[in-house]
Amino acid sequence: MAAGTLPFDPMPPLRGIRVGTVQAGIRKANRRDLVVFDLGPAATTAAVFTRNAFCAAPVIVARAHLGAMRPRALLINTGNANAGTGAVGEAAARACCAALAERLGCAPEAVLPFSTGVIGEPLPVDRLTAALPGAVAALAPDGWADAAWGILTTDTQPKAVSRSFERDGQTVTVNGIAKGACMIRPDMATMLAFVAVDAVIDPADLQGALEAAVAGSFNRITVDGDTSTNDACCLVATGDGPRLTPDDPAWPAFRAALDEVCLQLAQAIVRDGEGATKFITVAVDRARDAAEARQVADAIAHSPLVKTAFFASDPNWGRILAAVGRAGLTELDLAGVEIDLGEVSVVRAGGLDPAYREADGQRVMAGTDITITVRLGRGAAGVRIWTCDLGHDYVRINAEYRT
Amino acid sequence: MAAGTLPFDPMPPLRGIRVGTVQAGIRKANRRDLVVFDLGPAATTAAVFTRNAFCAAPVIVARAHLGAMRPRALLINTGNANAGTGAVGEAAARACCAALAERLGCAPEAVLPFSTGVIGEPLPVDRLTAALPGAVAALAPDGWADAAWGILTTDTQPKAVSRSFERDGQTVTVNGIAKGACMIRPDMATMLAFVAVDAVIDPADLQGALEAAVAGSFNRITVDGDTSTNDACCLVATGDGPRLTPDDPAWPAFRAALDEVCLQLAQAIVRDGEGATKFITVAVDRARDAAEARQVADAIAHSPLVKTAFFASDPNWGRILAAVGRAGLTELDLAGVEIDLGEVSVVRAGGLDPAYREADGQRVMAGTDITITVRLGRGAAGVRIWTCDLGHDYVRINAEYRT
Repeated sequence: MAAGTLPFDPMPPLRGIRVGTVQAGIRKANRRDLVVFDLGPAATTAAVFTRNAFCAAPVIVARAHLGAMRPRALLINTGNANAGTGAVGEAAARACCAALAERLGCAPEAVLPFSTGVIGEPLPVDRLTAALPGAVAALAPDGWADAAWGILTTDTQPKAVSRSFERDGQTVTVNGIAKGACMIRPDMATMLAFVAVDAVIDPADLQGALEAAVAGSFNRITVDGDTSTNDACCLVATGDGPRLTPDDPAWPAFRAALDEVCLQLAQAIVRDGEGATKFITVAVDRARDAAEARQVADAIAHSPLVKTAFFASDPNWGRILAAVGRAGLTELDLAGVEIDLGEVSVVRAGGLDPAYREADGQRVMAGTDITITVRLGRGAAGVRIWTCDLGHDYVRINAEYRT
Repeated sequence: MAAGTLPFDPMPPLRGIRVGTVQAGIRKANRRDLVVFDLGPAATTAAVFTRNAFCAAPVIVARAHLGAMRPRALLINTGNANAGTGAVGEAAARACCAALAERLGCAPEAVLPFSTGVIGEPLPVDRLTAALPGAVAALAPDGWADAAWGILTTDTQPKAVSRSFERDGQTVTVNGIAKGACMIRPDMATMLAFVAVDAVIDPADLQGALEAAVAGSFNRITVDGDTSTNDACCLVATGDGPRLTPDDPAWPAFRAALDEVCLQLAQAIVRDGEGATKFITVAVDRARDAAEARQVADAIAHSPLVKTAFFASDPNWGRILAAVGRAGLTELDLAGVEIDLGEVSVVRAGGLDPAYREADGQRVMAGTDITITVRLGRGAAGVRIWTCDLGHDYVRINAEYRT
């Protein structure tokens, strides 16, 4: 179950890109766990990776390959994160890239590897490479929906978003799939997202668009405050379609479609967070700058006390107020702070609004989608981030590994 | 239940200080919920308060009173935190101080108020003041054990520690009581600790000793990373006994006794953390400086994934490694990082120690007291902090308010 409805859009084929998904038996039998994207020879690729200093072997290899040449293919496996595996893990990732490269007739460095699953176990290179012929045979333009399933670990539902726009009478489409649910059992560590657009876009422009889209989406979600060793988001321009540059009249439409795909996928990851029953938007406004707005939003979104209160549908404004107070802002004037739950005014002038009625707060909390709005009364900056509640199932899922 | 055994030492009377505890019916009947300390006329008092910008009314009033004159009495109530109550709450705290001052024949500003309990509800001044005659009548030198019970909210056990030392053949004793269990149901927000020594100590020396003791104890514990609006720790030198200054040969013995009392109380708060079943020492060594050591220790101790793994007695080193990686250290060389669970070597050179056997890790995790040691390989600085696991009862306790 998830908090609200997750997007699983019809995924139209994109010009110039094919997707193949198979069962490789990497950790479990009868489960789609290996996905290959054949990007074709003309594609450009942008990517952002985890900021965790302990990045997994596939992240190290993907970064190196991305810097070496234009990627031709993406190779994604679940069931094993190939993390904490040292030099042996890097060699394993390179071996898998080489095996796929041989099948596709490209250089090994033209394959970017992505892994998600158990940390600290050796990647089963033999099972993975044995499944590659089948994956290559399965490559098809309409393979997106299968791939959305194939990249999942303990996500409860697939996440797929598609948006199109017109450019000189030609339809351009942005497809994206993601997996998330935070770091999960047993350490299914990784948020992964793969997005593509059937257009021709220069790598630098593509990277800029991706970083902006990620800043407004995947970097604004938190389930438990932990970042994984394998997080990656990859954006491909297939090279087949109209040429798009920042000067093009259709560029804003591309950016809007890309932003929307990333935002919907990011919010879907939160809705499918471990044990999530509530989707919470934390809005902080009237801050001096974006940094301090984010500081306050993070303090609220990471507070286990706030998150357990939301699990219980409890309008526990004292916990929100305490989180604002400990966010570390200098010279915070309490008298300027206001808090709303949904449309209900709860805190005014740093204290309980005399007009607040508990029944109103409880009515808001009974919903699945809830917005906390904090106005700091210090300036004009603001931020929105998204999180979920903290319930019994979070503990159950994360504790029951091996028991 | 708590993780391990909590200290409840025999509490000898101290010269020059009397303690009275009664049932005031502030939130519930038949519960000791009001404590008065009569410090006498010669006492000096030091205190540290929450750094939360939203400090509660009693904290505001206590700070002001402490700056105005030498305190004569402490007035502590549970059941109501008098937090988020604005100007009305401050007036209520002052009214209670005035009522006690009248009984003791001192100025209202000579009374320091402390409150813990529900946030956002008006302090029942009438019930509190009605109980003061009884509390004053109950004042006695041997009232410490009762007071240890009287300051609890949802703690499962009282916490009381006593240490003595000799000074020129005279016994000097440091008594301390505390309550904690983090911010708890329903928002029983507050860590409170009251410590006294029967000696004559100048206020500035006393404050310095307290701040050092708190830095090594209460500021090194975390249950859920939330800090409350009411936290306070108060140290009284009763003014009856030998005079102690930093030049005195017995000063180190005083500091050692004080540090030990604070450390034992702080660790007892963690052991009695909400739903705690494990007491976890996080030791970070070989850091460049204390600040980065603390940064890494906090990242581990605040990670819900690490804490749920400990709840499940799961030697999930991947989660510890990921927490180290996301702590934000610059130029962290993974190859220099080592992690031990208890005495068992788990991570060496940034990867799994080839000699590690899962059974060894599981044996360590089966215990109640567990030490995680991380060596960063960057310098000579280190830190120890203490935390507990995150289990089902944490969610239950914090979610079930009003349900």
